[in-house]
Amino acid sequence: MGYKVGIVGATGAVGQEFVSLMKERNFPVSELKLFASARSAGKQIEANGQTYTIEEATKTCFDGLDYVLFSASGSISKELCPAAAAAGAVAVDNSSAFRMDPNVPLVVPEINPEAARNNNGIIANPNCSTAITLMGAYPLHKVFGLKRMFASTYQAVSGSGAEAMQELGDQLKAWAADKPMEKNVYPHQIAFNALPHVDSFLDTGYTREEMKMENEGRKIMDLPDMKVSCTCVRVPVMRSHSISINAEFERPVDIEEARAAIEAFPGVDLIDSPADNLYPMPLDFAGKVNCGVGRIRRDCAFDNGLAFWVVGDQLWKGAALNAIQIMECLIK
Amino acid sequence: MGYKVGIVGATGAVGQEFVSLMKERNFPVSELKLFASARSAGKQIEANGQTYTIEEATKTCFDGLDYVLFSASGSISKELCPAAAAAGAVAVDNSSAFRMDPNVPLVVPEINPEAARNNNGIIANPNCSTAITLMGAYPLHKVFGLKRMFASTYQAVSGSGAEAMQELGDQLKAWAADKPMEKNVYPHQIAFNALPHVDSFLDTGYTREEMKMENEGRKIMDLPDMKVSCTCVRVPVMRSHSISINAEFERPVDIEEARAAIEAFPGVDLIDSPADNLYPMPLDFAGKVNCGVGRIRRDCAFDNGLAFWVVGDQLWKGAALNAIQIMECLIK
Repeated sequence: MGYKVGIVGATGAVGQEFVSLMKERNFPVSELKLFASARSAGKQIEANGQTYTIEEATKTCFDGLDYVLFSASGSISKELCPAAAAAGAVAVDNSSAFRMDPNVPLVVPEINPEAARNNNGIIANPNCSTAITLMGAYPLHKVFGLKRMFASTYQAVSGSGAEAMQELGDQLKAWAADKPMEKNVYPHQIAFNALPHVDSFLDTGYTREEMKMENEGRKIMDLPDMKVSCTCVRVPVMRSHSISINAEFERPVDIEEARAAIEAFPGVDLIDSPADNLYPMPLDFAGKVNCGVGRIRRDCAFDNGLAFWVVGDQLWKGAALNAIQIMECLIK
Repeated sequence: MGYKVGIVGATGAVGQEFVSLMKERNFPVSELKLFASARSAGKQIEANGQTYTIEEATKTCFDGLDYVLFSASGSISKELCPAAAAAGAVAVDNSSAFRMDPNVPLVVPEINPEAARNNNGIIANPNCSTAITLMGAYPLHKVFGLKRMFASTYQAVSGSGAEAMQELGDQLKAWAADKPMEKNVYPHQIAFNALPHVDSFLDTGYTREEMKMENEGRKIMDLPDMKVSCTCVRVPVMRSHSISINAEFERPVDIEEARAAIEAFPGVDLIDSPADNLYPMPLDFAGKVNCGVGRIRRDCAFDNGLAFWVVGDQLWKGAALNAIQIMECLIK
């Protein structure tokens, strides 16, 4: 009659999407338990017309659950995902804790569903920019064979959580009222700005976000030798990420074949009629299941290359939706 | 005691920067004439504490002038720049009309000043994104030898003129007041959005802006065989452009050498201390003479490659400032 599902991090931006999306997609839930930190335990939240009491997420809270969706910090996932798996549940983890673990599948269901079925109790949900980028890159890879890829992102503030969305809104409201802006989430003002800084910096000069895109892309597409270079940038957009991609392929490219490959792939919409001002835009993809691919053209700097543009909802395909799609793929 | 200078398009966003920047930089002006379309003729505008009456720009208005700065449409430039040159002036044109004309030098004074001195009465000022990109790319080219370049832009609305800056502000004020937004300048809402659409589309799927960056970069750096691929995107930022660049070089790269090359180059600031959250941001470069270069790192997808990030004021280095620097270089 349904599955017993737990959500760790239920009070966050992604956690709330978990709850509403499962309902919206009719995921068969017989029991839903919402977990968060001790600080939030006891709080009541309304979701899908019901009232839920938040329980503290602990190592012993997962008994009897079939699936546990995690959207908390990496350290919480590291501690609690194995406990959920040991309790017999499958943990679908949205943090980066297990993504590169060779014993944990990293899954975009349209790309590598078989990896999800081959799990040891933990499945990793990819980084948001990675999942969205691959929804454009993978269908083209299947036709032409990906060899090298450059990606520059235009990332929404939703990727930094609900407080960041609030901060962008507050800054713009302050600006409109001619008042000083405040910043807490980001080290710099995000309104009217672009921050080439998503996640923390490594000694190499890359950010962790940039390396996630590079490494996770190789793992999900099973292309260990693919060359990838990414630049991740935060822009004053609320909740959809956009990615500008230049890709080099093994085989000669053809624009009509490329468009056909995107059109035939599940989970993506081809929006590519520039003469009519039609291309994917972040504003149009908030709250959309599918990602959008457009601006497909022959790359000017590669012989067998394509330049293209992918957009997707960071909270959905970039996080909550993909995790639920992983569960859907397991119960099929 | 000074030069007689005319400005065509004096009422526009760039035209107004011409007037204030010449004053700020103490460009020796003995007489200043402001021209615009017949519609604006007779209007009075205040600039630098003086009142100027706008005159209609015609083929016969340039007599006696030494320099005429143009910031109007390409068709007006095509008609009037030759008239200014025939009247004995040097026309410095901010439109794209003459940029790829082999008889017209296309100049960024820090890069190819000798080309400016070798003019036939018309000098072209480059596209805004091109000039700003090259301020980061050229110093690195001098050390390592540019071979191939991918650029994705984050372009401010100032590039579409004063009305676009107004439109972004109006949309955000409407949003803050919970009122519907209006759009006139762009085909789509720009607030909270990213439009992969700058200038008009060609049949190849590229925009004119993207091809300007590719072709103008080759001409200014005198690198006719350089491979370049660009994606131009409008973001809700007021007046500075940012560019994410992946570049492949002839020779092995070294990060410290790259940083030293940027530091030694006139007109650019090295802002590259990610551990301290220091990198160039568009908000910091509005009204700055120098462009900023940062996020310099070894490219992950090229053997001899660098990834980096360049920011500059679209109205200044991307337009008015560069044109005035061309005049400065001629009177030196």
